Amino acid sequence: MKGYDMAGSEKTVRVLEKVHKANDLLAEENRGFFAERRLFVVNVLGSPGCGKTTLIDATRRGLEGIAVAVIEGDVAGDVDARHFAEQGVPAIQINTGGGCHLDAAMVKQAVADLAAPDDSAVFIENVGNLICTSGFDLGEGLRVLCLSTPEGDDKPLKYPGIFRGADALVITKSELAEYVGFRFDDVKKRASLLNEELPVFEVSAKTGDGMEPWCRWLAAKMRD
Amino acid sequence: MKGYDMAGSEKTVRVLEKVHKANDLLAEENRGFFAERRLFVVNVLGSPGCGKTTLIDATRRGLEGIAVAVIEGDVAGDVDARHFAEQGVPAIQINTGGGCHLDAAMVKQAVADLAAPDDSAVFIENVGNLICTSGFDLGEGLRVLCLSTPEGDDKPLKYPGIFRGADALVITKSELAEYVGFRFDDVKKRASLLNEELPVFEVSAKTGDGMEPWCRWLAAKMRD
Repeated sequence: MKGYDMAGSEKTVRVLEKVHKANDLLAEENRGFFAERRLFVVNVLGSPGCGKTTLIDATRRGLEGIAVAVIEGDVAGDVDARHFAEQGVPAIQINTGGGCHLDAAMVKQAVADLAAPDDSAVFIENVGNLICTSGFDLGEGLRVLCLSTPEGDDKPLKYPGIFRGADALVITKSELAEYVGFRFDDVKKRASLLNEELPVFEVSAKTGDGMEPWCRWLAAKMRD
Repeated sequence: MKGYDMAGSEKTVRVLEKVHKANDLLAEENRGFFAERRLFVVNVLGSPGCGKTTLIDATRRGLEGIAVAVIEGDVAGDVDARHFAEQGVPAIQINTGGGCHLDAAMVKQAVADLAAPDDSAVFIENVGNLICTSGFDLGEGLRVLCLSTPEGDDKPLKYPGIFRGADALVITKSELAEYVGFRFDDVKKRASLLNEELPVFEVSAKTGDGMEPWCRWLAAKMRD
């Protein structure tokens, strides 16, 4: 069996380096803004349909006594932002118009208008994408990767970059694990080879299983 | 609720136009090569873990009397190409090394070395990504989009581009639909607003449900 390793051209790599440098500067600016307002900002990453919105919603209910606001990133549409706004949660929708990830400039603009009180937790739901989102620092305090059980336990082997950069891995839809043959131990072993100290949580936002330890850990991170 | 539409900067758009133009020329070259060799090339798109490999494997078995070869695209790893090679299917792995999609140049290089007999069906499993893959013509004869039921029936609202460009939509993991509350009619309605004549198939590669009409349709396309 043949195989090819295809690195980008030198020119493409140079252009990308410039893009990332510009993004990193804006991300630092965002970080300063968040600190000033005492906003605890969580960048939530994961594949399309892995349950990011449902996790944020269940986490919000689990973080008792903490104000929560939400920034939703999607190529198009505003179903998720509307969902939160209808429940009285401050919410802003970013439509990337074809773009495959959020960047620090988009978040800077959105967060300035977000009606989040000081000391809030702000969840940024990134575009559903296991590759492009991982290269863009938004200025967040915590980067959470969601992996749903139906996606399979081989994902760390195929998308190593996003596992390397995560501060926590939340395995979602744990209630489906038995139907899809998902092996928690295998994914933990594979993820730890990429990111040794990565905390891993198994949750079902649907049944509530595992939500309590996850919310407790997150609340402790906010107090740090 | 506020919302932002973020189009790319004019400079970024110009760079992307150049990239796409170069890719389109190579895609046409690939198309000529495929015609010369009478290869029927299928570009298989979908999210990470939506079941692309399992669908290709079940389809291969359903296409009786037709030789099949496979090109696997992944950021890293070669688990899927090894899976096919072990069964005696000609297979080549492309590792994009961080890249979020295959392009025509990668496929040109891989297909030249692929031990596919003339008159074969060649399945190209693209990188798991609902956004970036849709902008790159590989020279394929058919573009098949996979959507797995656990991803949810709202995906056409959030990722319209990839639904617009598909020649067929295969809804995978139909055996999980009842557990995840997936509404086939809703996704069909939403997809048809973007792509009026899009053929839609509901399959479970696991149980075999729906595989027969899908394979029959595909074989007819090959004879066209």
